[in-house]
Amino acid sequence: MNESTLRVNLGERSYDIVVTENALHQCGAFARARSAGKRALMVTDTNVNPLSAFVHAGLDAAGFRTAFALRPAGEAQKSLATAAELYDALADMPADRNTLVVAVGGGVIGDLAGFVAATYARGIPLLMVPTTLLAMVDSSVGGKVGINHPKGKNLIGAFHQPLGVFIDIGTLATLPDREFRSGLAEVVKYGVILDAGFFEYLEQSVESILDRDPETLRRIILRSCELKARIVEQDERELTDVRAKLNYGHTFAHAFETAGGYSYWLHGEAVAAGMICASRLAERRGLIAPEITDRQIALLNAFGLPIAAEKTWPVDALILTMRRDKKSVGGKLRFVLPTALGEVALFGDVPEADARAVLD
Amino acid sequence: MNESTLRVNLGERSYDIVVTENALHQCGAFARARSAGKRALMVTDTNVNPLSAFVHAGLDAAGFRTAFALRPAGEAQKSLATAAELYDALADMPADRNTLVVAVGGGVIGDLAGFVAATYARGIPLLMVPTTLLAMVDSSVGGKVGINHPKGKNLIGAFHQPLGVFIDIGTLATLPDREFRSGLAEVVKYGVILDAGFFEYLEQSVESILDRDPETLRRIILRSCELKARIVEQDERELTDVRAKLNYGHTFAHAFETAGGYSYWLHGEAVAAGMICASRLAERRGLIAPEITDRQIALLNAFGLPIAAEKTWPVDALILTMRRDKKSVGGKLRFVLPTALGEVALFGDVPEADARAVLD
Repeated sequence: MNESTLRVNLGERSYDIVVTENALHQCGAFARARSAGKRALMVTDTNVNPLSAFVHAGLDAAGFRTAFALRPAGEAQKSLATAAELYDALADMPADRNTLVVAVGGGVIGDLAGFVAATYARGIPLLMVPTTLLAMVDSSVGGKVGINHPKGKNLIGAFHQPLGVFIDIGTLATLPDREFRSGLAEVVKYGVILDAGFFEYLEQSVESILDRDPETLRRIILRSCELKARIVEQDERELTDVRAKLNYGHTFAHAFETAGGYSYWLHGEAVAAGMICASRLAERRGLIAPEITDRQIALLNAFGLPIAAEKTWPVDALILTMRRDKKSVGGKLRFVLPTALGEVALFGDVPEADARAVLD
Repeated sequence: MNESTLRVNLGERSYDIVVTENALHQCGAFARARSAGKRALMVTDTNVNPLSAFVHAGLDAAGFRTAFALRPAGEAQKSLATAAELYDALADMPADRNTLVVAVGGGVIGDLAGFVAATYARGIPLLMVPTTLLAMVDSSVGGKVGINHPKGKNLIGAFHQPLGVFIDIGTLATLPDREFRSGLAEVVKYGVILDAGFFEYLEQSVESILDRDPETLRRIILRSCELKARIVEQDERELTDVRAKLNYGHTFAHAFETAGGYSYWLHGEAVAAGMICASRLAERRGLIAPEITDRQIALLNAFGLPIAAEKTWPVDALILTMRRDKKSVGGKLRFVLPTALGEVALFGDVPEADARAVLD
């Protein structure tokens, strides 16, 4: 496979996303071309550890003296306590302003290591090496980093664009099936919100996607990153409604994740069900024809993803969580809704009755 | 006294600095003109607590429901543990993206509350109400916020520009003499690095400054903020050498603060002695005539500030600390040195022998 490179244009914070296959050690040269640093701190978790040896070797070969922070896997690592341990690791090196933080893993590792990089010495360089589909197409691109607070996911965070994103689709070969399917929910999302042609391509490529055909994976990852990059370029810090488009399905999804205690569903599973709720809500508001929802249901079903809330979750509690969403202002219900296939808009004051109706 | 306003031009992050007298409650209207938020979290310390009642009343009158975080006074508050308590306070309100963090106090409160505002929900609005001279002329302007790590002061931090800075010089009436004199060191610094005419004004105004004459204070605070603002506008995130000019005297000062365990000298005292070391270093390098150092010594003496390191501090340890400075890269000695009165430049590779000579 040829290596493909995509540029995220953000002025002095611009960076490249490279997509390659079975070339993980080359992340060292990728980093060296963008950094004069002498040291690196590689952050990874126990699930990803076998892959991280290649990254470590690549960084070594490129002349980075590399320290290694191995964390247990899981969302619990996105804590202030773990961030404190990584600050200690950097201070012990000691890190300077050119020291590179290298996040090798899924969204948890990227968010955590990214937050530490954003706040150490007021910001040091960050290299993202995502190893899950979700991290490749979503969390490693766009600069959102953060940790959790007992009262809210990602409640403590920053915007910190990486030095670069190095994607090796070879790392997906060992990704558990459920994690892989979860990542596909975000891929479907890009089609619905921004690109009807891409949505059609996904409909036509279900088999090769589920077979993890490298060329198909390369194509869907590149296009997903490109669509996200074009949004982030227009609204890096989510100051307008543009970046909010990426939250399609996410207001419902966060309520589902809260209802399930963040362990019942993976993030992508919650997003899948959330998108269908949002799409039904758009139907109720007269924005789209049912056929647009039906096509999303068919595609998400084909990917083995959920399309509705669990019936045991009390609707009252879901509504309350949505009113308290980090993105809500003044407790109003605010949703990104499709207006056509490939188009969404933000609706700021949706009646509660409509939201209830699609949950019931 | 007329209210004076100064604008810091940073595109969408631009803000006003207002200087007023005995009008602390007006900070509420100042905040309301810049924020549609419904809630505020006021952060202050036990020293400042008597003044904070006026701020609280002003915020109330302007329609902010205000929670109150009262911390003990002192540098120890710039910790991750205290930041965690402030995150809890915000989450308990609960804060949303329009909730205002109001820092009422000196540099410690501004840096701490600013860091929390920078990282809560990826950044919420921050109003600075500095109550020490040092905070008025330095730490509350320019967006540097942070907390300490056992291995380094301000090692965990961010850039987060405030919504505005509300300075009431009436708050200086009760500032202890030593704290007031410490703040004057940074005022002198602006003259040396950027404005010979301002330096001359300070030489001619020693008596009225030490008498805390309101009109003189207003003038020196406004000019200091203006000089800092013009630097920050050119190099907001210290990516070039421009913002580094503000570090005149600070490489030595940090070594002195470390030698004294951060308790022997106040920050401004360390900066005063550090400026004289840097000025002598500039003499040794043939950059300036001795008269320029002599004038700084005379002015700092008049303000009762130290002009040399304590003789008990081992020079080897001071040099080692300077090599490890957060701003040093690759362990080289790097100094901001005067090239004339009102002009400085950054020198990247000063021989250790010269640095030793000015310390001996």
